Amino acid sequence: MEKIDGKAVASTIKKEIAIKVQEQVKNGGKTPHLAAILVGHDGGSETYVAAKVKACEICHFKSSLIRFDNDITQERLLQEVVRLNNDDDVDGFIVQLPLPKHIDEQAIIEAIDYRKDVDGFHPLNVGRMSIGLPCFVSATPAGIIELLKRYNITTSGKHCVILGRSNIVGKPMATLLMQKNEPGNATVTVCHSRTPNIKEICLTADIIIAALGQPNFVTADMVKPGAVIIDVGTTRVPDASRKSGFKLTGDVLFDEVSAKCSYITPVPGGVGPMTICSLMMNTLKASKKKI
Amino acid sequence: MEKIDGKAVASTIKKEIAIKVQEQVKNGGKTPHLAAILVGHDGGSETYVAAKVKACEICHFKSSLIRFDNDITQERLLQEVVRLNNDDDVDGFIVQLPLPKHIDEQAIIEAIDYRKDVDGFHPLNVGRMSIGLPCFVSATPAGIIELLKRYNITTSGKHCVILGRSNIVGKPMATLLMQKNEPGNATVTVCHSRTPNIKEICLTADIIIAALGQPNFVTADMVKPGAVIIDVGTTRVPDASRKSGFKLTGDVLFDEVSAKCSYITPVPGGVGPMTICSLMMNTLKASKKKI
Repeated sequence: MEKIDGKAVASTIKKEIAIKVQEQVKNGGKTPHLAAILVGHDGGSETYVAAKVKACEICHFKSSLIRFDNDITQERLLQEVVRLNNDDDVDGFIVQLPLPKHIDEQAIIEAIDYRKDVDGFHPLNVGRMSIGLPCFVSATPAGIIELLKRYNITTSGKHCVILGRSNIVGKPMATLLMQKNEPGNATVTVCHSRTPNIKEICLTADIIIAALGQPNFVTADMVKPGAVIIDVGTTRVPDASRKSGFKLTGDVLFDEVSAKCSYITPVPGGVGPMTICSLMMNTLKASKKKI
Repeated sequence: MEKIDGKAVASTIKKEIAIKVQEQVKNGGKTPHLAAILVGHDGGSETYVAAKVKACEICHFKSSLIRFDNDITQERLLQEVVRLNNDDDVDGFIVQLPLPKHIDEQAIIEAIDYRKDVDGFHPLNVGRMSIGLPCFVSATPAGIIELLKRYNITTSGKHCVILGRSNIVGKPMATLLMQKNEPGNATVTVCHSRTPNIKEICLTADIIIAALGQPNFVTADMVKPGAVIIDVGTTRVPDASRKSGFKLTGDVLFDEVSAKCSYITPVPGGVGPMTICSLMMNTLKASKKKI
């Protein structure tokens, strides 16, 4: 069994991006510029945005953080989105989710110019990805595809079983893996809460992508020997023995399953670090105005 | 085994639509208006467009047919799309495909206002469908969903195996069947040319949707007793004994498979008649300005 080291891959990719940016700028190109809108002071969102700003530094990107209080109106937030759409120096931007309840998240997402939507949440990017047109792919699926590439894990002709049908992981992952390219060309099965025989289906999988948000759901008896296991779960399970009071727990019972599979992503340190990395790759792409 | 009579269902739906339109108009609403752009004189396209115009009559819709010669420039065609986008009387319109080779089909599709894209081919509609937002679903998948509803075939918890990963059938069908509603809530597997063990996977299917375009591909030994079979294939197989010189042939070996399954769509007369019906349903929806 080989552990897929998402942290190391993410670190390598950020260094590669930094070199590409230095070259791009040397050749008269633009310094990629990522802007982030942060509303309120949610602890998780603060942490994520801080990590994104830091990743921008490592990648030699310019970054802007635009803060608003929790009581910002939807109208004012939409104005800011329009301003960023029209700001030629900003290549891509994100609106950190979740937003306060009085704001319609979907309306904000749809107001973003899809050519600057580096989170890949705009319906135009979702549709373009499905059709196979140039687009921004959302962070987690893009990160998983990148991990598979870096570890030379082929998907063509393989049976990929995806657990979970969310808009940001399950569905785009299914689309990407069935496309006519590599990684892709896989037979794809999507299971979810209404699937009666998940165990039986998992046993036929060459690759399992677990994104249910149910800690330790995938056990060894569900895994075919030699399968590849990608664990997207990150549930905070209470743990009094830790300073934080919780343990970040994946959807896969790691100790048991790791003994049986060929590759596995740990939690933390597997898929997680790749998400910010995908955002950086999307921002670099945006700065080249390729979409 | 019950044969799914798509022709009869389509006829019923068109009559239902006609009644709804009469009511809508009586209550001061709009007469739905579908426009179609037809470029050149391709025999197949002429037939399809004529059938669409006739369906509009049955549904009490207004229809407009706009014809151009094969040598129309892309610019001129785009102008016409913009004109229809801005024509308040036109609720929805289609550009009959295929277009001549000097025209970029994707550019034409993307120029259509997605709120009038009753074919459901615009990436915004594809993305909105994936996310679960109000949208126009393309004709064949929408028609299959309608057939399942009309025959009370439940999909929740069932294993649906889709053969084919095309943008207009396989992929949207997968998305619709995994959504959190009924029809939907199914475990979905998408197989295609790179799937090594299609037979084995088909044998686990409660519902098979065959859209490979390979005549008689699905044989009885691939079907679990009692499965539901939806045949999307319509290949013209040469047949000297017929006046037309061909026999419209599905992806399923009908005589063999029909003896084993619970429901089956014949070719012709199954899914085919539903596609124009879906277009009519989308046009009615468009006239209500619900998207």
